Amino acid sequence: IEAPCAEDGGMEELATEKEAEESHRQDSVNLLTFILLLTLTILTIWLFKRRRVRFLHETGLAMIYGLLVGVILRYGIPATSYHHKTPPSCSLKEGPASTLLLNVSGKFFEYTLKGEINSREIHNVEQNDMLRKVTFDPEVFFNILLPPIIFHAGYSLKKRHFFRNLGSIITYAFLGTAISCFVIGNLMYGVVKLMQVVGQLTDKFYYTDCLFFGAIISATDPVTVLAIFNELHADGDLYALLFGESVMNDAVAIVLSSSIVAYQPAGANTHMFDASAFFKSVGVFLGIFSGSFVMGAATGVVTLHCFPLLETALFFLMSWSTFLLAEACGFTGVVAVLFCGITQAHYTYNNLSEESTKRTKQLFEVLHFLAENFIFSYMGLALFTFQNHIFSPIFIIGAFISIFIGRALNIYPLSFLLNLGRRHKINQNFQHMMMFAGLRGAMAFALAIRDTATYARQMMFTTTLLIVFFTVWVFGGGTTPMLSWLHIRVVTVSRLQLIFPFCVCRVDVDPDQDLQPCVDNFQVLQGDGSQAEGQSKTKQESAWLFRLWYTFDHNYLKPILTHSGPPLTSTLPSYCGPLASCLTSPQAYENHEQLRDPDSDLIHSDADLTFMFGDTAITANGASANAAGGSGWSANGKRSGSTSEEALERELDSREQELLSRGTRLVFPIEDHV
Amino acid sequence: IEAPCAEDGGMEELATEKEAEESHRQDSVNLLTFILLLTLTILTIWLFKRRRVRFLHETGLAMIYGLLVGVILRYGIPATSYHHKTPPSCSLKEGPASTLLLNVSGKFFEYTLKGEINSREIHNVEQNDMLRKVTFDPEVFFNILLPPIIFHAGYSLKKRHFFRNLGSIITYAFLGTAISCFVIGNLMYGVVKLMQVVGQLTDKFYYTDCLFFGAIISATDPVTVLAIFNELHADGDLYALLFGESVMNDAVAIVLSSSIVAYQPAGANTHMFDASAFFKSVGVFLGIFSGSFVMGAATGVVTLHCFPLLETALFFLMSWSTFLLAEACGFTGVVAVLFCGITQAHYTYNNLSEESTKRTKQLFEVLHFLAENFIFSYMGLALFTFQNHIFSPIFIIGAFISIFIGRALNIYPLSFLLNLGRRHKINQNFQHMMMFAGLRGAMAFALAIRDTATYARQMMFTTTLLIVFFTVWVFGGGTTPMLSWLHIRVVTVSRLQLIFPFCVCRVDVDPDQDLQPCVDNFQVLQGDGSQAEGQSKTKQESAWLFRLWYTFDHNYLKPILTHSGPPLTSTLPSYCGPLASCLTSPQAYENHEQLRDPDSDLIHSDADLTFMFGDTAITANGASANAAGGSGWSANGKRSGSTSEEALERELDSREQELLSRGTRLVFPIEDHV
Repeated sequence: IEAPCAEDGGMEELATEKEAEESHRQDSVNLLTFILLLTLTILTIWLFKRRRVRFLHETGLAMIYGLLVGVILRYGIPATSYHHKTPPSCSLKEGPASTLLLNVSGKFFEYTLKGEINSREIHNVEQNDMLRKVTFDPEVFFNILLPPIIFHAGYSLKKRHFFRNLGSIITYAFLGTAISCFVIGNLMYGVVKLMQVVGQLTDKFYYTDCLFFGAIISATDPVTVLAIFNELHADGDLYALLFGESVMNDAVAIVLSSSIVAYQPAGANTHMFDASAFFKSVGVFLGIFSGSFVMGAATGVVTLHCFPLLETALFFLMSWSTFLLAEACGFTGVVAVLFCGITQAHYTYNNLSEESTKRTKQLFEVLHFLAENFIFSYMGLALFTFQNHIFSPIFIIGAFISIFIGRALNIYPLSFLLNLGRRHKINQNFQHMMMFAGLRGAMAFALAIRDTATYARQMMFTTTLLIVFFTVWVFGGGTTPMLSWLHIRVVTVSRLQLIFPFCVCRVDVDPDQDLQPCVDNFQVLQGDGSQAEGQSKTKQESAWLFRLWYTFDHNYLKPILTHSGPPLTSTLPSYCGPLASCLTSPQAYENHEQLRDPDSDLIHSDADLTFMFGDTAITANGASANAAGGSGWSANGKRSGSTSEEALERELDSREQELLSRGTRLVFPIEDHV
Repeated sequence: IEAPCAEDGGMEELATEKEAEESHRQDSVNLLTFILLLTLTILTIWLFKRRRVRFLHETGLAMIYGLLVGVILRYGIPATSYHHKTPPSCSLKEGPASTLLLNVSGKFFEYTLKGEINSREIHNVEQNDMLRKVTFDPEVFFNILLPPIIFHAGYSLKKRHFFRNLGSIITYAFLGTAISCFVIGNLMYGVVKLMQVVGQLTDKFYYTDCLFFGAIISATDPVTVLAIFNELHADGDLYALLFGESVMNDAVAIVLSSSIVAYQPAGANTHMFDASAFFKSVGVFLGIFSGSFVMGAATGVVTLHCFPLLETALFFLMSWSTFLLAEACGFTGVVAVLFCGITQAHYTYNNLSEESTKRTKQLFEVLHFLAENFIFSYMGLALFTFQNHIFSPIFIIGAFISIFIGRALNIYPLSFLLNLGRRHKINQNFQHMMMFAGLRGAMAFALAIRDTATYARQMMFTTTLLIVFFTVWVFGGGTTPMLSWLHIRVVTVSRLQLIFPFCVCRVDVDPDQDLQPCVDNFQVLQGDGSQAEGQSKTKQESAWLFRLWYTFDHNYLKPILTHSGPPLTSTLPSYCGPLASCLTSPQAYENHEQLRDPDSDLIHSDADLTFMFGDTAITANGASANAAGGSGWSANGKRSGSTSEEALERELDSREQELLSRGTRLVFPIEDHV
């Protein structure tokens, strides 16, 4: 086979076919490896969920299994079974083109460019075909795996707490990530200089490389922490702050890093950061934002009623086309998809039929679940199968210290500034929790693996991998102890069901949406006479940015883009009459009376809910909660965490007694070892 | 850019990067084109569904839009905007390897083999990069688009009518497809000989090529017809026969064609069909079947309760791994996935939680919908963008006549033979309908495009494309007139709702599963005293093959693989006691009493349902229907279509009157122009 008879066309063709078949089979085996990994993860997670094990999240588990398989692939399979063969090589004077024709005695074969490989890798090509095969093209992450994850994050952002904390979230995400990036970049530059002095650095490492590292490692991904928050129904504001920040700073990190790469001076010697380039990239970022926003709004208008399958398919296609459109325009698809998700959750969701809202949610939930666990198990695998790791202890230790300092300089000063303007202060314990929840995950990894051609990038990749492992396992696993150590109040399911025995709350749904019916039930029980009063009060307390946005959105955007909200004819001034009636959907008039806008909850019933989650941050809401609550529920107006916790505990107990004395049926979950 | 300075590494790198970026952007635009095509299709279909337009199915529409875009791409875009560039070429003595290294002044680039191109195509490479770009790698169809379609088909086969007609379906699918393949192959060989005489043939065309064409064109795909059957609630048996045949013969055609290719004699001169090779491939086929069956059964055991997301993810992964496992073993993944789907529908489905059954169905429904419409719109596009069409009028006309004769020699003789053994005869009109419903679709196309390297294959591809277009548009569009012309009874929704006013039947769900609750409601209304009698009668009438299978499945397989069915301890002989209690799931004991096995409907309530669909084939069921029906429903025991139709019409009318006189509320669909 090594040197087929060039004259016999049939034999040669057969050999090529055999080789292609072999390669296809190898691909199947590789994919199968990952699928078995995911299957194992799912089975174990299922066991963990049944046993209520919280110290290890599915992503952490996926990494462990990935590591194990990586070890097996690396050391377990004897070297003889590898496909030893030096690929033929040919020389050209011209630079590489995307397509290359190979002329083998008159027959032409087409080859496509896969990428440059350096001299070390050529050795690997010869030696270890198997390990190279399980290494994916990094673009797979950006074009296939990240989009559903990011879209799902955006689509899940339809939360009352998110919009209430919008200002803070944007501050953390934009300003905070920029701070983190520069702090880490500069500290790492110091580390690199130190390494040069010690003589540990064997190749070039520029200042822009350090900044790039700062950008990629600033993308936080507290998926583990948030899962536990969800399960324990921890504070809604804290959840929204963490989730919102992590979603947004992914977008910021990706744009930051790509602008650092794209606008670095062409001359190889300077490699300093260019401020004007940065502002250019901010412009691009804003361009993407508004483009995606318009795109998302456009899809909101194009929804179909009556046929759930068509609605779901269209929804899926519109999300995907946002991604592709952005990529085609030279923007960043992942960022576009994020904002498309947010817009769709806010507008399109209202236009979909009930069946379709469920379908789309479930579809993206499954895609997100699979993609996320795939990435994490791939990370585990990559630690052993990636060929060009550069473990540099000084760099790694320096990076760990830098990200700690960078996170601290992001959270604490910004929280202080935000607290100056916020009515609901972000208290010390919340700040510590946010500091603690600075895990790194899929986005940092995907950005790091995108380019591993140079020495500096390879060192960054190895370090990023280790940081992800460490933060996911250690910080992720420590969330539950940390929550109780910081006295952050969690409401467990059995507790909730004692108070609201009329509804069975499921375990694994996010707190806001799940508790809503319970709270409604409760208000029916209590009689909500004084609610109107409470409403207006809470409305005044809302952040001004949010209030401004809410009014504009509710009065103008929603009526134009969805079938909900008041008709435009009633919100626009009278001289806009014809335009208004032209833009308003006929259904809006019908809805006007009986419609309870789902987003009106954003403002109205916050008081009750925050009280429900009864934590240390509820003080500002105390008065209105009191007004809304009615009988038997005295609001605790104190700032201190432990005192209000005790007060709530007492409240819960008395409420429990009251219900029991009335003979109400109590619903307990089957297994509740909380 | 054409000749970058080879000395300046930075500039060169930048040029490569730019080119890669450009290529990525181009890919995005291409995908976007397809997504917009699908979006257009969905929007139009939505309009059609609302207007109840039945003459054009979504797949037909997708083809039309594909054609339009193909025309625009081909003729609309000025040639100047193409990316004119001759790819560099280099020569080697050795045969092509899957990986090629390119050495450009010391730097190495890796290239992967895309395939052989002939001299005509090299010209195209130079001329029309854009058109080549929208042409997908044919393996995309087999590895990405076909699996969800075929899996969904298998997963939808859980139908009472399917299992009752299993023997006939297998006969049509295996024997019938083999007949069709040989008849078409031999007829086409005659056509090819004729073309040689006339001098229309400019290159080689062997006998095995003709047989190959027979195999690929024997895969029927009456998706259009079945959609209309679904909508009109046409006869269940006919539906099952057509659907079952089309699903199964895809598998047969794919194995047939690959065995014809794989086992053709290596010497280029003989190219005759080898019978021993055929039997070898039958062995492979049986191997795949049993392998997939075991695989599917294994996944049936590995289901998780309580967490729908995990269940759905696991279900998806198991289906996919079946595909990959088969490919890795050198079998045919698509076939494995089909049987995996059938097994999962039969066993796994019973183990899933209610939420998951819905989720999995919806997930695969969306995937199937998107994949199918993508393939059909790609077909439309390919007619203009594919570069190597060979339109040969004689070959095309010959092919049309051959497939007609092939289908006739499949349906009529086999139906005659089957009718000798069947209790429920397949009557003349049903046979005509089956003959009519021999559309060609996705599978034929995918098989034809897989290899278009030689002259013969290119001619086949062009012909296949035209056959698909013609059959989908003409036969697909003519289904509704044909149904009424053949007097095949359809039950429309408004009609059904008149009879069973207590349930609102949705329009676009398949007849069996949707009607089941209605029938149950009806029985509650009527009182089902004499049902036991009807049961035993219908049981005796069932086909022996089915009865044998049903007993084995119900007594042994279901208890082992699922939580339903009777416990093994009661079905196995007493000396197997310990083994039995070990294999039985604890839930089976609990279920034993109250369980209504969902598949028991397969036999028990057939009588009522067949009566409901009241068509010409119900005669054999007449007696039991009479027994089960009870009051006011006289069974019509005559063979003739029109008479029984009139009788049913009268029945419906009298029933309607009766209900109206009782003052029952009647539910009408909003728009029903049926």
